[in-house]
Amino acid sequence: MKELSKIALNIQPSATLAVDSLFKQMKEEGHDVVGFGAGEPDFNTPDNINEAAYEAIKNGHTRYTNTSGVPELRSAVANRLKSDCGIDYKTNQIVVASGAKHNIYVALRALVNIGDEIIVPAPYWVTYTESIRMVGGIPVIVSASEADNFKITKSQLEEAITEKTKLFIINNPSNPTGMLYSEDELRELVDVCIKHDLYIIADEIYYNLVYDNKKFTSVAELGKDVKERTILINGVSKTYAMTGWRIGYSASSAKLAEIMGNYLSHSTSAPSTISQYAAIEALNGSQESITTMRTEFERRRNYIVERINAIDGLSCRKPDGAFYVMINIEKQIGRTLGDRLINNSDDFSLAFLENGLVATVSCTSFGCENFVRLTYASSMETIKEGIDRLERFVMK
Amino acid sequence: MKELSKIALNIQPSATLAVDSLFKQMKEEGHDVVGFGAGEPDFNTPDNINEAAYEAIKNGHTRYTNTSGVPELRSAVANRLKSDCGIDYKTNQIVVASGAKHNIYVALRALVNIGDEIIVPAPYWVTYTESIRMVGGIPVIVSASEADNFKITKSQLEEAITEKTKLFIINNPSNPTGMLYSEDELRELVDVCIKHDLYIIADEIYYNLVYDNKKFTSVAELGKDVKERTILINGVSKTYAMTGWRIGYSASSAKLAEIMGNYLSHSTSAPSTISQYAAIEALNGSQESITTMRTEFERRRNYIVERINAIDGLSCRKPDGAFYVMINIEKQIGRTLGDRLINNSDDFSLAFLENGLVATVSCTSFGCENFVRLTYASSMETIKEGIDRLERFVMK
Repeated sequence: MKELSKIALNIQPSATLAVDSLFKQMKEEGHDVVGFGAGEPDFNTPDNINEAAYEAIKNGHTRYTNTSGVPELRSAVANRLKSDCGIDYKTNQIVVASGAKHNIYVALRALVNIGDEIIVPAPYWVTYTESIRMVGGIPVIVSASEADNFKITKSQLEEAITEKTKLFIINNPSNPTGMLYSEDELRELVDVCIKHDLYIIADEIYYNLVYDNKKFTSVAELGKDVKERTILINGVSKTYAMTGWRIGYSASSAKLAEIMGNYLSHSTSAPSTISQYAAIEALNGSQESITTMRTEFERRRNYIVERINAIDGLSCRKPDGAFYVMINIEKQIGRTLGDRLINNSDDFSLAFLENGLVATVSCTSFGCENFVRLTYASSMETIKEGIDRLERFVMK
Repeated sequence: MKELSKIALNIQPSATLAVDSLFKQMKEEGHDVVGFGAGEPDFNTPDNINEAAYEAIKNGHTRYTNTSGVPELRSAVANRLKSDCGIDYKTNQIVVASGAKHNIYVALRALVNIGDEIIVPAPYWVTYTESIRMVGGIPVIVSASEADNFKITKSQLEEAITEKTKLFIINNPSNPTGMLYSEDELRELVDVCIKHDLYIIADEIYYNLVYDNKKFTSVAELGKDVKERTILINGVSKTYAMTGWRIGYSASSAKLAEIMGNYLSHSTSAPSTISQYAAIEALNGSQESITTMRTEFERRRNYIVERINAIDGLSCRKPDGAFYVMINIEKQIGRTLGDRLINNSDDFSLAFLENGLVATVSCTSFGCENFVRLTYASSMETIKEGIDRLERFVMK
């Protein structure tokens, strides 16, 4: 048979989904495993949103919609960005797609020609580098150190830029680090982007999950010249516990929104109409559930960080947002844990799952050595049990 | 600002969606327009399917699923293909995506390298040629004539094949022609594909809508050597009046299914979980609504074909399936209708919308001159009114 697509053959399946699959398989086989892998809130979708979905179905909102989303949803997104971040977008600048991941993919498709370089700070969400390769781009990794709180500096960014650089991707707050760039830090980075005429993809999907009363600043708030070259990415999955509904959105120039809409019109069409109506209620309805979830996530973060730093031979920085924490496992290198010699974080993560019965993600797949990522999107009981196991596992 | 993606800039927005937008705009402006444009059943999603969606939400099926779909849905698809077409697929050969359009796109991504040629019979569904260009392939059009009932012959197919040909796309029954290839006709075409080692994408989304008790044959039924090189495309949109739910699926070799799953894992993730559970009920539950809809579509087809052929200067072939009919408007060329000189079917379609207040789609966007497409997915009242207007329009 003839050769398949070279690019498609080279795609690495998502490491986080792979851990999740192994975790679920072990669970099905009857093992008492604890999952710290998937970045999915344990809360249920709030009732008012579910009710809106029932209503949509009852009212026959089960047909095709405009490719970029129904006007009411695009308008709800624009209003939300205005009231949360103070940024003005018109409805025709908003593109709704089947999850924020889909918006990122379509944004890359609209921007990237083969051979274009795209700068990605590490540690990064694994889909960035894979999707860049899928569209024929070249990911250029800029590594942030733990000492810098996993944030890159303007001089690091500037050094990575060549004539081929098209785009800079920033995820703020970050998955997997949980760190938040301040307004001043962001301004330094975007000034470099303007100077070198780069586009910016700003993935701000965790912006509602910022703790310690820290202030979130959107990239698009930093001035007209930044906004016009920025594609903001967001969605309802994390903020409203709606991961399975698959609604993401972008805000950009009208020109880019039109191109992305055209791309969607021949590759997917619009996302589920029912989900779109549920998302309208999520964005327009009561925002109280966000406060409840944020307060709970903050409590869990405080607990998990304190417990990890109390374990001899492990440490972690305190994240500012999202629901991830990165454990430094450098001091475990060279030890034998659960019959396995630990040469790197992959070994640690695997040994911990096999013998400690806890699923984590090794950060090698996020472009970073000697760290494993835990999510604290699960219940306090689960977190407590998982950390107890971690303690016993490394104390052995 | 730097240049955007050359490929994305060249995408033509869907012509059918464009007509639909203009139609909706005129409607909003208070015009009394009749829509024959969009290929969307006027039936509501059956109640048992809606109930399954409510249940899914109540039971918290609102979270991430496996990228290629929940096992129950993939298994429901395999069972449906077995009982409807007698073809055996395992669950790991089924990939669920966000609509059949999405499955086609991902199939092309898995198969096509830049410069590969893909053979598409015309008249074609406009997304085939656009999505082929989007993945860097070259559409090679083979035109079927009205005299051949809009079906291509094996010698036409053979003549179009070069060393660069990777793939043959067949849509059976066809949008926009409504024609059905018989088992013998299909066998002749797939023999050519086997001889030249071509993959086949068989888009069979209308297979439940075949009239006159004609027998539908799936490409994958024609033998092991055909099946292994074929990606079957289907979905719940047309058969179960679920266009807005966005659930499509493919059946292929396990290898191709895995590659497509990897592609989905970094570009979209799975479709809406709620829609997946609704689709399980659609495929596993009572199939009675299909018979009801098919009977009604057949009645409408009989009516519309008879009415069209009774109009002087217009004619049409009787379609075997789907819910489209192509009107031959050749005899209208050179006339002036509604202040507009008719040079081609684009002029006819536009004049008919502006002055006859009926939305149709000119078949130039389907690779075919001098035809306009009507859908009979709307109610009998709408069809009657639309055809009355057509009669008055060309009698002027």
